[in-house]
Amino acid sequence: MARSPRREPAPLIQQRPEWRNLRHPFAPQSLFSEDRIVALHDMALKLLEDLGLKVLLDEARDVYSAGGAKVVDEMVFIGRDLVEAAIASAPARIPLGALSADRDLVLDNGALIFGAGAGCPNATDLVAGRRPGDLSTFRAALKLQQSFDVIHTLSPSAEPQDVPVQMRHYEMMRGQIELCDKFPFIYGRGRGQVTECFEMLQLALGISNDEFLEAPRCGTVINTNSPRQIDRPMAQAVIDFARAGQLCIITPFCLAGAMAPVTVAGALVLQHAEALGALVLSQLSRPGAPCAIGGFGSNVDMKSGAPAFGTPEHVQMSIGTGQLARHVGLPWRGAAGAASNTTDMQAAGETHMSIWGNLMANAGMVKHAAGWLEGGLTFGFEKFINDIEGLQTIAALCTPPDISDDAMGWGALEQVDPGGHFFGADQTIERFETAFYQPFVADLNNFGSWSDAGATPSDARATGIWQQVLTEFTAPDGAAERAARIDQWIADHKQAGGMNILE
Amino acid sequence: MARSPRREPAPLIQQRPEWRNLRHPFAPQSLFSEDRIVALHDMALKLLEDLGLKVLLDEARDVYSAGGAKVVDEMVFIGRDLVEAAIASAPARIPLGALSADRDLVLDNGALIFGAGAGCPNATDLVAGRRPGDLSTFRAALKLQQSFDVIHTLSPSAEPQDVPVQMRHYEMMRGQIELCDKFPFIYGRGRGQVTECFEMLQLALGISNDEFLEAPRCGTVINTNSPRQIDRPMAQAVIDFARAGQLCIITPFCLAGAMAPVTVAGALVLQHAEALGALVLSQLSRPGAPCAIGGFGSNVDMKSGAPAFGTPEHVQMSIGTGQLARHVGLPWRGAAGAASNTTDMQAAGETHMSIWGNLMANAGMVKHAAGWLEGGLTFGFEKFINDIEGLQTIAALCTPPDISDDAMGWGALEQVDPGGHFFGADQTIERFETAFYQPFVADLNNFGSWSDAGATPSDARATGIWQQVLTEFTAPDGAAERAARIDQWIADHKQAGGMNILE
Repeated sequence: MARSPRREPAPLIQQRPEWRNLRHPFAPQSLFSEDRIVALHDMALKLLEDLGLKVLLDEARDVYSAGGAKVVDEMVFIGRDLVEAAIASAPARIPLGALSADRDLVLDNGALIFGAGAGCPNATDLVAGRRPGDLSTFRAALKLQQSFDVIHTLSPSAEPQDVPVQMRHYEMMRGQIELCDKFPFIYGRGRGQVTECFEMLQLALGISNDEFLEAPRCGTVINTNSPRQIDRPMAQAVIDFARAGQLCIITPFCLAGAMAPVTVAGALVLQHAEALGALVLSQLSRPGAPCAIGGFGSNVDMKSGAPAFGTPEHVQMSIGTGQLARHVGLPWRGAAGAASNTTDMQAAGETHMSIWGNLMANAGMVKHAAGWLEGGLTFGFEKFINDIEGLQTIAALCTPPDISDDAMGWGALEQVDPGGHFFGADQTIERFETAFYQPFVADLNNFGSWSDAGATPSDARATGIWQQVLTEFTAPDGAAERAARIDQWIADHKQAGGMNILE
Repeated sequence: MARSPRREPAPLIQQRPEWRNLRHPFAPQSLFSEDRIVALHDMALKLLEDLGLKVLLDEARDVYSAGGAKVVDEMVFIGRDLVEAAIASAPARIPLGALSADRDLVLDNGALIFGAGAGCPNATDLVAGRRPGDLSTFRAALKLQQSFDVIHTLSPSAEPQDVPVQMRHYEMMRGQIELCDKFPFIYGRGRGQVTECFEMLQLALGISNDEFLEAPRCGTVINTNSPRQIDRPMAQAVIDFARAGQLCIITPFCLAGAMAPVTVAGALVLQHAEALGALVLSQLSRPGAPCAIGGFGSNVDMKSGAPAFGTPEHVQMSIGTGQLARHVGLPWRGAAGAASNTTDMQAAGETHMSIWGNLMANAGMVKHAAGWLEGGLTFGFEKFINDIEGLQTIAALCTPPDISDDAMGWGALEQVDPGGHFFGADQTIERFETAFYQPFVADLNNFGSWSDAGATPSDARATGIWQQVLTEFTAPDGAAERAARIDQWIADHKQAGGMNILE
C-alpha cells in the first residue's frame, strides 16, 4: 500500500490573490414578485413626496431646495422626478482606489466585498477581556484586517476612545496608512475632520486634490436617524463626500419593529425611501457622485427591544434590499451581524446565517462580516478569527472546481481497487497540496487527539492565532513611505490643537 | 410616548404546522455547465460498464445477472441500458407515510426534509459528558426529534450499544413507535432483522402486508463501501426494501481524497456511479421501487485523513450532486455535518455552512442536520438544540413575508414622526405577537443583563432546554395504542432469543 501523502500544517495566513476581488458565486434570489417590488418602490417615492424627511443641516436643506425639493421648516419633500434624476446620475459601477493598487476594488452589482465589524465602542478577547476600545485595540484590529485577503476594505473595528475626539481622526488615518494598503474608511464627523482626512490621504498617496477628486480613494457610511431623519454630521458627510468624489454608503438603520415598521415590507419601504432621499442630496451636491445605497435591516426582539441578527427577517430584509437595489440599478451594501454576547454557537450561527442572507441577496459590500458581537457593541478578536474561516470558505466557493476530463480522473478511478483508497493514487499525489481549502481554525483531529492536546475549543484556539498574526505582522510594501509623508503634518496639526468634531 | 408592547418568552417548542412540510425557498444553484454534467454522467456510466462494482452478496449478483449485467466472480459490470432503464423506472416523487398521517411527507426535487444526526456510536451532553450510546440516550434523542416540527424523519441518533445486537432492532423500533409519530428508520442489518422490523411496523399501524407494500412507511440508508463495493448487508437491504416497497436511500460515502478521487469532479463521478449501480439493483429487484440517490460527499483533511465538513468542497459536492440528480430526474439526499469535537464556533460554522450547501443544492432530504459532532462519531444534545434554532430559521424562510399593501403599512409610516419609533404604532400592536421568528436558544439581552444572569453561553443554555423538553415530553396521540400492538410480539421474540444481524 502506498504511503499517504502528508501536508504541512496550513499557514495561518493564506496568500490568495484570487480572494482579493470576489464575484458572487450564487445567483441573486428573489422573495417578492417584480410587481410587488414596483409597489414597494412606489410607496417609497410617495413617502418622500408626501411625508418627507426631516433634515437637520441648513446647508443640506438649501441643496435640496435649490434642486427643486419643497422645504418647510426642517422638513424636505422630495418629488419623484428628483429621485429618478438621482438614480439616473448615480454610477452603477464604482471603482475603489485602495492605498496600494493591487488592493483596488470595483463595487457594482455582482461584486462581493467584505469588511470587518465596524464602529464598536468595545473590544474583547480571551486574554484581556472586554474593555472600551482604545488606540492599541484599534490598531491591532487593523493589522488583523490587513492580514487576511478576504477582508477587502478597512473598518474602524474598535473606537480609540483614549484619543481625544479632536485628535482621533489623525490616529485613525495614521493607523490605516501606516499599517495597511486596503481601501480606507473615514468617519463623517463634521466638515473639518473630513477635510483634514482627505488632505492626509492626498499627502500619503502623493496625489493632487484634482487627482483625488477623480475617483474614490476612501469611503464613509452615513446612517439616517430612522425613521425619516438625517442629522447634521450625516447630511454634511453626504455633501462633502459627494463634492470630493469619495464613496458615500447610505445606510438607513431600519430595524423592523423599532425604528421601522414591524413588517419586513414596511421596513423595506422606509429603508428604501431614506436611502433614495439621501441619494438625492448626494447627486444634487455633485451629479455622478459615487454613492451606494443598501441597508442594515434586521428586526428587534419584541421581548427586549434589542436588535436581532441572523434571523429570518434579517435574511428577508437582505434579499428585499437586493431586489430593490437591482430594480433601481445601483450598487448596495448589506450587513452581517451577531447579537450574541460571547464566542458561542449562537454567535457563529447568527453570523453565518446573515452572511448567507447577503449571499442570497448578492450584496455588493458586506459590512460587519467578521468580529461582531453584541449587535455591534463589541469587536471580538476570537470571533474575528473564526469568522475569517467562514469568509475564506465562501471565497473558495467563488472559484468553481476544476471539471476538466483530467480532474474527473479516469486514471485514478481505474487505479484503485474496490474497497481501496485514493490516498496513494497518482492523481492524489499530484494534486493533494492544493486540492482543498485548508482550514486554519478548524481542528480536524479525532476526539482522542484533540482531548490529549488539551480539548481546546475554537475560540481559545483563535487566541493563539490572532496573537501569532499580530506578532508576525509586517506592514505592506509602501506603507512606511506613505506614513512618512503625513507624520509631520499630523504633528503640526496636533500641536495646533486638532480639529473638533461637527466643525 | 406609547408603551412598547411586550411579548412573553418564546415557548421552547413552537407548534408550527407549516414547518412540517417544507419546500426549498431558494432556486437550485449550478456549479457546472450542462455539458460537463453530461460528461460526469457519461463517465459514471463508463465506470459501471468497464470497471464495474464488487458486490459481495451472492443473491445480489444473481439479481444483476438475471437483469442482464455481466458478472465475473464478485465483479458486476452494468451496461448503460440497464442504468437508463433503472432511472426510467425509479419514481421521481416518493410519498412517505409517517406513523401518523399528519406527519406524512413527499420526497421529490423541491422538498426540504430534515433529519437529525444519525448513526453515532457516542453521545455527549454537558451533564453526563461523552459516553457510548445506550438505550436511554437513543430514546432521549427520539424525544427531542419528535418535539420539533423541523425534524421530519426519525434517525437513530445514538446507537443503543447496551442492548444485545440480536435484540437491538426491537428496542429501536419500539422507541420510535412508542415515542414518535414521524417517518421511521430501520437499519439494513440483514434480512432477518429487516423483515421483523417490517412486521412490527405493520402490527403497530394495524395494516396488512399488502397495504404495507403499497407505499413507503419506513426508510433506510445504505452506504456503499466506496470505492466501487457493496457489502452483504447493504446489498441485502437494497433488495429487501425494494421488494417491500420501502424507501431505500442509496448513499455512497465518497470523501474526496480518501474513498474517492482527490478532486470534486472525480468524487462526483464515483459517487454518481455507485448510486446508479445500486439503483439498478433496486429497480431489478422491483421496478418502481422507491429509491433516492445522493451522497455524503465532502473531503478529508489531507493532514490527518480525517473527514472534513462544511468545507468549500463539501458545498461543491452538494451542489454537483444536486445537478446530477436533477439531470437524471431523481430525488436525492444530502448531508450536513460537523467535524468539531465540541460545541464551539467551529461546530456551528461547519453545520451552518453545510446546511446552506444543501439549500444551494436543493437536497430533498438533509440528513445529520442537527446534533452531529466529530464527523458523526458523537451525537451532542446541546449541539442538537442549537442546530434546531438554525433549522427553524430556515423553515421560517420557507414562508415569504407578507408583501400586501397592508403589510407595507402606509398608516404606520404616516403615524410615526421623524426620529421617533414604531414600538407603539397601531400596526406594531396588531402584529408584534407573530411578526418575527422567536428564537428559543439565542439570548438577545444586552451584555450587562446577560452577565448579571450568569454569562451563560449558548451550549450551556441548551442544556436547560433539552432537559426541559425531555421533562415535559408526552408521546403523540396514538403512539400508546400503536406501541401496545407490538409489546407482546416483542416480548415473544425476545423470549425466543431475538434475531442475529446478517441473518
